[in-house]
Amino acid sequence: MTTLRIIAGSANPELADTIANYVGAGPADTLVERFPDGELLPIVENVSGSDVYVIQPTPPPVNDHLCELLLLLDACQRARAARITAVVPYLGYARQDRRTRPGQSVGVAVFTKAIAAAGAHRLVVVDPHTPALEAISPIPVEILTAVPTLAQEIALSDRVVVAPDEGAVKLAERYAAVSPNPLAVVRKRRKSGTEVTALELIGNVRGRLPVIVDDMITTGATIATALGLLNLHGAAPDVTVAATHGVFAHGALGRLHRLGLRHVLITDTISHRTLQPEFQVCSIAPVLAEAIAAMHNDEPLRAPPSTAWNLT
Amino acid sequence: MTTLRIIAGSANPELADTIANYVGAGPADTLVERFPDGELLPIVENVSGSDVYVIQPTPPPVNDHLCELLLLLDACQRARAARITAVVPYLGYARQDRRTRPGQSVGVAVFTKAIAAAGAHRLVVVDPHTPALEAISPIPVEILTAVPTLAQEIALSDRVVVAPDEGAVKLAERYAAVSPNPLAVVRKRRKSGTEVTALELIGNVRGRLPVIVDDMITTGATIATALGLLNLHGAAPDVTVAATHGVFAHGALGRLHRLGLRHVLITDTISHRTLQPEFQVCSIAPVLAEAIAAMHNDEPLRAPPSTAWNLT
Amino acid sequence: MTTLRIIAGSANPELADTIANYVGAGPADTLVERFPDGELLPIVENVSGSDVYVIQPTPPPVNDHLCELLLLLDACQRARAARITAVVPYLGYARQDRRTRPGQSVGVAVFTKAIAAAGAHRLVVVDPHTPALEAISPIPVEILTAVPTLAQEIALSDRVVVAPDEGAVKLAERYAAVSPNPLAVVRKRRKSGTEVTALELIGNVRGRLPVIVDDMITTGATIATALGLLNLHGAAPDVTVAATHGVFAHGALGRLHRLGLRHVLITDTISHRTLQPEFQVCSIAPVLAEAIAAMHNDEPLRAPPSTAWNLT
Amino acid sequence: MTTLRIIAGSANPELADTIANYVGAGPADTLVERFPDGELLPIVENVSGSDVYVIQPTPPPVNDHLCELLLLLDACQRARAARITAVVPYLGYARQDRRTRPGQSVGVAVFTKAIAAAGAHRLVVVDPHTPALEAISPIPVEILTAVPTLAQEIALSDRVVVAPDEGAVKLAERYAAVSPNPLAVVRKRRKSGTEVTALELIGNVRGRLPVIVDDMITTGATIATALGLLNLHGAAPDVTVAATHGVFAHGALGRLHRLGLRHVLITDTISHRTLQPEFQVCSIAPVLAEAIAAMHNDEPLRAPPSTAWNLT
Amino acid sequence: MTTLRIIAGSANPELADTIANYVGAGPADTLVERFPDGELLPIVENVSGSDVYVIQPTPPPVNDHLCELLLLLDACQRARAARITAVVPYLGYARQDRRTRPGQSVGVAVFTKAIAAAGAHRLVVVDPHTPALEAISPIPVEILTAVPTLAQEIALSDRVVVAPDEGAVKLAERYAAVSPNPLAVVRKRRKSGTEVTALELIGNVRGRLPVIVDDMITTGATIATALGLLNLHGAAPDVTVAATHGVFAHGALGRLHRLGLRHVLITDTISHRTLQPEFQVCSIAPVLAEAIAAMHNDEPLRAPPSTAWNLT
Amino acid sequence: MTTLRIIAGSANPELADTIANYVGAGPADTLVERFPDGELLPIVENVSGSDVYVIQPTPPPVNDHLCELLLLLDACQRARAARITAVVPYLGYARQDRRTRPGQSVGVAVFTKAIAAAGAHRLVVVDPHTPALEAISPIPVEILTAVPTLAQEIALSDRVVVAPDEGAVKLAERYAAVSPNPLAVVRKRRKSGTEVTALELIGNVRGRLPVIVDDMITTGATIATALGLLNLHGAAPDVTVAATHGVFAHGALGRLHRLGLRHVLITDTISHRTLQPEFQVCSIAPVLAEAIAAMHNDEPLRAPPSTAWNLT
Repeated sequence: MTTLRIIAGSANPELADTIANYVGAGPADTLVERFPDGELLPIVENVSGSDVYVIQPTPPPVNDHLCELLLLLDACQRARAARITAVVPYLGYARQDRRTRPGQSVGVAVFTKAIAAAGAHRLVVVDPHTPALEAISPIPVEILTAVPTLAQEIALSDRVVVAPDEGAVKLAERYAAVSPNPLAVVRKRRKSGTEVTALELIGNVRGRLPVIVDDMITTGATIATALGLLNLHGAAPDVTVAATHGVFAHGALGRLHRLGLRHVLITDTISHRTLQPEFQVCSIAPVLAEAIAAMHNDEPLRAPPSTAWNLT
Repeated sequence: MTTLRIIAGSANPELADTIANYVGAGPADTLVERFPDGELLPIVENVSGSDVYVIQPTPPPVNDHLCELLLLLDACQRARAARITAVVPYLGYARQDRRTRPGQSVGVAVFTKAIAAAGAHRLVVVDPHTPALEAISPIPVEILTAVPTLAQEIALSDRVVVAPDEGAVKLAERYAAVSPNPLAVVRKRRKSGTEVTALELIGNVRGRLPVIVDDMITTGATIATALGLLNLHGAAPDVTVAATHGVFAHGALGRLHRLGLRHVLITDTISHRTLQPEFQVCSIAPVLAEAIAAMHNDEPLRAPPSTAWNLT
Repeated sequence: MTTLRIIAGSANPELADTIANYVGAGPADTLVERFPDGELLPIVENVSGSDVYVIQPTPPPVNDHLCELLLLLDACQRARAARITAVVPYLGYARQDRRTRPGQSVGVAVFTKAIAAAGAHRLVVVDPHTPALEAISPIPVEILTAVPTLAQEIALSDRVVVAPDEGAVKLAERYAAVSPNPLAVVRKRRKSGTEVTALELIGNVRGRLPVIVDDMITTGATIATALGLLNLHGAAPDVTVAATHGVFAHGALGRLHRLGLRHVLITDTISHRTLQPEFQVCSIAPVLAEAIAAMHNDEPLRAPPSTAWNLT
Repeated sequence: MTTLRIIAGSANPELADTIANYVGAGPADTLVERFPDGELLPIVENVSGSDVYVIQPTPPPVNDHLCELLLLLDACQRARAARITAVVPYLGYARQDRRTRPGQSVGVAVFTKAIAAAGAHRLVVVDPHTPALEAISPIPVEILTAVPTLAQEIALSDRVVVAPDEGAVKLAERYAAVSPNPLAVVRKRRKSGTEVTALELIGNVRGRLPVIVDDMITTGATIATALGLLNLHGAAPDVTVAATHGVFAHGALGRLHRLGLRHVLITDTISHRTLQPEFQVCSIAPVLAEAIAAMHNDEPLRAPPSTAWNLT
Repeated sequence: MTTLRIIAGSANPELADTIANYVGAGPADTLVERFPDGELLPIVENVSGSDVYVIQPTPPPVNDHLCELLLLLDACQRARAARITAVVPYLGYARQDRRTRPGQSVGVAVFTKAIAAAGAHRLVVVDPHTPALEAISPIPVEILTAVPTLAQEIALSDRVVVAPDEGAVKLAERYAAVSPNPLAVVRKRRKSGTEVTALELIGNVRGRLPVIVDDMITTGATIATALGLLNLHGAAPDVTVAATHGVFAHGALGRLHRLGLRHVLITDTISHRTLQPEFQVCSIAPVLAEAIAAMHNDEPLRAPPSTAWNLT
Repeated sequence: MTTLRIIAGSANPELADTIANYVGAGPADTLVERFPDGELLPIVENVSGSDVYVIQPTPPPVNDHLCELLLLLDACQRARAARITAVVPYLGYARQDRRTRPGQSVGVAVFTKAIAAAGAHRLVVVDPHTPALEAISPIPVEILTAVPTLAQEIALSDRVVVAPDEGAVKLAERYAAVSPNPLAVVRKRRKSGTEVTALELIGNVRGRLPVIVDDMITTGATIATALGLLNLHGAAPDVTVAATHGVFAHGALGRLHRLGLRHVLITDTISHRTLQPEFQVCSIAPVLAEAIAAMHNDEPLRAPPSTAWNLT
């Protein structure tokens, strides 16, 4: 009926092309002009009457990628796309889902509102940092996960899954559930809301092979801290790290390399040119392609990656 | 300048009256007619030009309380209130902040949209189940907490704070931070997303006095499970429970009583007539009154109860 | 092209099934979970890309049925239904289309806004209490009527059609027009807006067979009053009553039975288990099924049940 | 605090001036330029930070008056009025609150949405044709009435109040309630929805002095018909007519004069230059001024002019 | 798939019919009733499920045509049109895209908002007066142009294209670009923003054949002024005028005729009965029909008529 | 009554401080954290109940400055500012007010919608590139101008004002009106919409002192071109340039310097560290401060900088 079109923003055109290949759509290349003053101007083609999927994660430079996404959505709407889905495998500003002190902003609300206003009908995200993205977004969201993709690359039996902070507990639980594994949690003992006094490792790791899991790696400092604690508590030294999004802020790759990790698994929600050999990139493209194909064909998606509710 | 008015819904008029007393506003009583067919009709008085705070938590019967809240807000708007704040100390449907399987609804989005559409300019909630309520709500939210109120009633030093499931970890962390305490977490080992195979207690509780903390107690089953595990792992038998909201579904109070707990602390976000002697109700009214007074006087509120972000 | 799907809320699954049968759609059953604390959680299936009709009248418990409707609509939207129509054969709160004293709410505005916000694209209602529902609702409305269905069960020639209050005059006119009949109106003489001094019957009923008609029967008191007046003015004792919606608040069925009416006609917009023999239920399912089929096939509906305007 | 400003559209500047006098605001004159091609351009002055009331009824030419109203509201918003109330004593298109056949529009929804979008925060209307205007309008509405104003000019005791069609029954009831009077209703017996077969007068008028009441007089044909029927049924020949709005379409004044009515009461919601001596204009300005003063001072208004609900 | 339907408002039914012919749709006639009080009531037919194009320019009486357009759009939406495009070849109020002094309105914002709110999904306009209509309208806009249509009727080589005021420079540039022509601009030297001191002609016209071009002719005064200046500066006397919209306010046609122009080209965006022989009407119908066909078939339109940006 | 607060974004804190000084508000400094991954987090202070003006132009890096603006507005709203005005002296993306070819976006619509959605009630801009910003923005706009500020620094008598492209004609007219001056326009003769064949200078410049005026200087190429043409047509060599916004993309300052211009006037809507001596920066702060003071005091602003309409 309507044609399926993959539109690539400039953030990760390789991923967009791979997805286009999987779903059998034509090449995804889109022109996004950048003027001398840094303003962007996309030109989308062949979207009239189509079912359009705009592939644009928002890693650094996050604001450029977000603004480009808004312009791409607007261009699709004006070009009379029949249906527009913003596919944002890595969604920036997802930490800002609450204020931690008065006077702050709540960025994820600001930008999901802007995405909806720019013309998207639906949003697709992989392992977003905030657990409540479906409720936050003014447009319906499909949440996908890289956990099975990453988990199958790790020999998970006989491991201890380590959440490097409280925020990662729910994600760690999903890894731990793959082949029933124990869990350990790194906790920051605080004096006040911001002042950390000591770090604590809850759960027994002695002699076990740890897998540190998180949704994203930004500076690597969280990993480094967890590694130190695992060492201290007698975990096996051969530590694996798995994270959906390799954000890798300036200097992070060097810092991670110096930690001597054996195996760091990430996906290609964010594209990277050259990585040290300990890094393994598992492509998220099959997961996205399957979801896009299902959405295009009006079929249900697999169960969303949430843990069940506790109703008692 | 503008007058401060407290409007009481029928869910917890005692709390509304106590708040009105604290802030020095007149009595909060509002007429809400209930017709023979169950339809509700509020009549608000003296709200023209006022700064109005509608106090209406939404415990069971949750749908009745929600619909009444919407009608109260609409009535205030039509009666020309200058500013309308929905004060919903206990917000129902806050678990529904995501789908856990395809085909479900996301109730907290539905009802915060309805609250905004009915005329509220701002929402005040105490310890909501979803951590991202600020980002979810179309209108700004102030999140208050009962943790300090409850914590000061517990001799917290030398305790282990127990999160009875993964969802309670962040709340437990806030209790544990009061006078630096260790943490333990109850975890459900799952085969699949819904099928639980075994329960596990992460963290060391042996010989320690446990405090089980949660945002709400509904059936008491989560508490019972945690209690069993604490027993098994050699915790001291004298267990305290602290929860902000005593929802107490049918039969819950009896079940809790039979567990032989020494001390169950809750607040009066939800009103209860008669409780067994082991229950202690700490009033949340001072916290709400302080916030309402600050909002009325256009002063900043204290820091919201969120743990800081991990930016690394 | 798109598939037609009937989704049944819990308010009247029998009616939904009958409609599904008529239109040749699969069974309408939908799971709506009710948690121990009364919160609802629907799970809709097979709606992706479909043209969905959610069948959910809102009789008592009206607030539960309304909230369930909102959640069902939200679930359909998130599950990617192509088009969502809220079919609410009996719409509660339709009396609240204006304030009768300051400080009241206008419930029908509150809940039609909430229905639209939850994801419905169109609303279908049968004989709503407010004549202006089309203008009130933010989404387009199709208004259906049970008058022909009920009228064909009454031998209408040589009858007097009785409006039991001023609000029923327009409905009575539509019955009276079936085979030209005289009309009588019960009127409450008021001292003030609320204080009734006496009842009056306008129009000649002496020796005639009366049919009392109304949109709904709630407590039966209006009928009882009309019956007394008809008796007083010498109407034939064999009175028929016809109403679209049998709301029947607590005690109403007993009260109606004791009035000794020969014939009470209602429809199944609201489902009832057991009724006394004088009650006759005429199914509204054919009317709804015809409208749904026409909407699904993008055909015009029959003329709406409104009387023409007086433009002079 | 904020200044009260009366802004006069071109539809009824005399009424605006009278209101301005009553409430002690400065003169209401506003410049509305009309360009050679018929486009309008208002220029409002001194509205920054003020509480502004734009007085603009919408009699014929109704579309010009509506468009001017929208432009006036927009101008006030851009000029930074603190609060904007659209005072539309006679609201056109209020009959279009439903479709009477498929394919029609619902004008009152279209134009109340446009009024809200143009910048009005609240709407004030006198005796609108649709009973549900409060529920229809996206912004809150205050409904005022001319009934007491007109009723005090009629010696109402010993009268029969005549509703000249079914739509006027509720209004007639409000006149009849002033000093308890009987009611009569003119009814059009219809074959189909549009084809009228005969006219009927319900209620006893023999020998009584009739008062025909309606919300508005457009062509006078409805009055003429009622007059004929009253004559036929032996009413006293000395007929009074009372209507809030003298719309008087082309030729209507001549037609009414030729009916030989003794007394026709209208208000000045619509302005008229010269009227025959049987016409008496009662000013609605005091009613509007009282409401505007109350709104400006954030005081409640009197009870709205609605009959109470029948809840049984 | 969906049927293409042309709906004709009363402003230019001939144009609508011609378009319907071109695109092979059935006749476009629509009933728009006008009541004695001037209120309009459209009745649209056969639009359920169709792709509908409502053809309604808004020449004088502009407010009547605008209100009719809003009602037509509302009627289409309620009749369940699948997609609704407002085709407004001449859009009134397009000058009001900014305030030129404080207190004014910005009409084009008011009416595009109203068009969107009434139910249009997309807007099609020919040579709108404001260059930024796409950004102004809340719904996407397709801008078409009459320049090629008019230009091919003028022997453009060896001409000087004259912009009769600063606002027409960009349009003049588009004519001048057809076969590279020089440009001249009439300029009003102002003392203040409104007071004009003298007129000036910039550019060399001596001995050249001038073509005065503008988007619309309203009173003809601008043309008359330009003509005087051209004469003064020694242009060839044989002046051609080309304008997309012949608005022709009262008296304009006579005034233009008396100027002794040889050739005045306009299009039929606005319909005219009888015109003097110097007027030539070039039909815009092929341009509109081509665009409508492309939109219906989900094909891209030709490039919009804007000059490129200057990005340096 | 409410306090005036100036909030400085990071784009031009010096300008914000100067404004704060002028209006007598406290220092404007605001903390905007930038995380290692480039995400921004503002913290605003003391805004509860205040009348807040957020000063944030959007020069390069434009997307960072825009996103920061959105977050600042959101933070103010959540912190309960009474009124929020976005003061964006230089507004990026203002060229994108239309598509110049199919498939493009219309950025100014995207970002003004986002500014409104983030919580701004009003927008203040200086000499925006698009003339229709008032109509484009969903919230009211105040347009200020630097023309008088810059014009008073130029000895304007006996000058020719040069518009370096068609887009600058209206601005040039405003300079030319200061002390009545002739006008010249640079025009690009185009073969097609994008291909320029030759440049032309319309108007007589021989022997006159030229002032090239534009709203902004980005690369300097437009100026260079105009300079060449002026030279060719015998203008006096001593050329002045005046532009409101010195955007100065990479390399622009060097290019401008090499042109040997005597005098380049800009304002400080965008801040610059070190400029060559031929550059003169005239502060726009007094203009902004005057406007902010008037808005805070609810007084009218001066006339907006638009040329009058041509209504004939």
